[in-house]
Amino acid sequence: MKFNDSPIGIFDSGLGGLTVFKEIRKILPLEDLIYFGDTARVPYGNKSKETIIKYSSEILGFLTGRNVKIVVVACNTSSSMALEYLQNKADVPVFGVIEPGAKKAVQASSGGNIAVIGTSATIKSRAYSTAIYKEIASLKGDKSSLFGSGFKVTEKACPLFVPLVEEGFLNQEITKGVIKHYLSSLTAEKPACLVLGCTHYPILKDSISAQLDGDTEIIDSGIETAGAVKDYLEKNGMLKSGAKKGGELFFVSDDVEKFKELGGKFLGRPIENVGLADGIK
Amino acid sequence: MKFNDSPIGIFDSGLGGLTVFKEIRKILPLEDLIYFGDTARVPYGNKSKETIIKYSSEILGFLTGRNVKIVVVACNTSSSMALEYLQNKADVPVFGVIEPGAKKAVQASSGGNIAVIGTSATIKSRAYSTAIYKEIASLKGDKSSLFGSGFKVTEKACPLFVPLVEEGFLNQEITKGVIKHYLSSLTAEKPACLVLGCTHYPILKDSISAQLDGDTEIIDSGIETAGAVKDYLEKNGMLKSGAKKGGELFFVSDDVEKFKELGGKFLGRPIENVGLADGIK
Repeated sequence: MKFNDSPIGIFDSGLGGLTVFKEIRKILPLEDLIYFGDTARVPYGNKSKETIIKYSSEILGFLTGRNVKIVVVACNTSSSMALEYLQNKADVPVFGVIEPGAKKAVQASSGGNIAVIGTSATIKSRAYSTAIYKEIASLKGDKSSLFGSGFKVTEKACPLFVPLVEEGFLNQEITKGVIKHYLSSLTAEKPACLVLGCTHYPILKDSISAQLDGDTEIIDSGIETAGAVKDYLEKNGMLKSGAKKGGELFFVSDDVEKFKELGGKFLGRPIENVGLADGIK
Repeated sequence: MKFNDSPIGIFDSGLGGLTVFKEIRKILPLEDLIYFGDTARVPYGNKSKETIIKYSSEILGFLTGRNVKIVVVACNTSSSMALEYLQNKADVPVFGVIEPGAKKAVQASSGGNIAVIGTSATIKSRAYSTAIYKEIASLKGDKSSLFGSGFKVTEKACPLFVPLVEEGFLNQEITKGVIKHYLSSLTAEKPACLVLGCTHYPILKDSISAQLDGDTEIIDSGIETAGAVKDYLEKNGMLKSGAKKGGELFFVSDDVEKFKELGGKFLGRPIENVGLADGIK
């Protein structure tokens, strides 16, 4: 059996990608993980494609310079804007969060409507719609005929969710009000599932769930991506050898202490081994 | 009489500084103005001092490279973190927004309590408290004795105000809820005045005012700064000569079209002459 003991590289504009990190750690406990959070330049969600490609590309260089065997773009905005660019540039496989989320949404909806929420840049890119229709087009037989002419994908930008999460406003009345404001037009479509198309949003999952009726399944792109990464490593003989628990290294482009404090809330446990990436900001 | 026909340079992390630009334009209609908005790296308010100094310093270089006669740091966060650094570095006078706002607050309060709101970085720096106590210490006679032992400066970070403004949520119920949330601890102190310590906040002035009782005067640091700049240019023979209406140039580090669209709302009129500053982001 083949193995590859190099680490997995994971990056995000800031803290949100830690929800993906957490899922990867959960199902791949032996892997060494290197996380990069671009906290100096967060958020990406309201920036231009050109800027997002530039920033993502710098981080890709930082991670591949640390000999990672695979890169996970744990940021929906970067995945929707820069993934193809990064895949063409890198010598290692680069995974985004959009395709795994879209795949799961098509499975889960069984022909029912699909709703997607994300940052302004992600929604504007229509990356989820594109990936969802591509997935539907690849379906065969019965599964394919489920998606009839009434089928609809509705996408909605929720630009205040990231600042709310970064401020720790998770269950407050204000947060409930903002969620209700954004979701009301989506719930009117009675979606079979709702894709959390931003890695910050799983932190708001309970509050979002409270605004949906019980028939709408919530899809966490991070969980799906972690599964896709595990599958890929297994199929390609790239898992880490041995039985030693995986190590963790975190890098940020701004204040290390703030990342430790807030990041701990995202991971649900204290974060150690955080360093400042000097060349990037 | 002496004159100086070089332009005035004004910069901010993004759009907020346009509220200062607007006030400068109002009282100095003949001056040529160059504005820089660091829209690729906005917001500054939750970043570290080191990062804010680095970004501000790059912008200072951009503006002085365009031969400006004076630089206005139209950003409270940068003024509180980087002003001294910029003043030491620049060959031209550099004005911040903190000191003019603090001066006006001391005048307006007449010994009553002063409240200050701003971004996390501005409030954490305690730049307003420091400037307010410095101003009080310089008072003479009767004016000085107004500030007795009961006098209090209360500062409060309101980190969600900037994203709300940037999203155009100005009078919504959500915005009212957020304002109430942040201001309730301040209004309990019955302040004589409230300093808007972030250049985005004047956009929320009406909604903020509605949460205060009528005895609290709102101080707009931008208006005070514009007045201080005018005084300085007059006293130092640095006003522009002639009677020709001043020109305007805008530079941004990200999407030009988005700046035009949103910036127009800040200025209350269409913005022309916006260019991408290629070297900075």
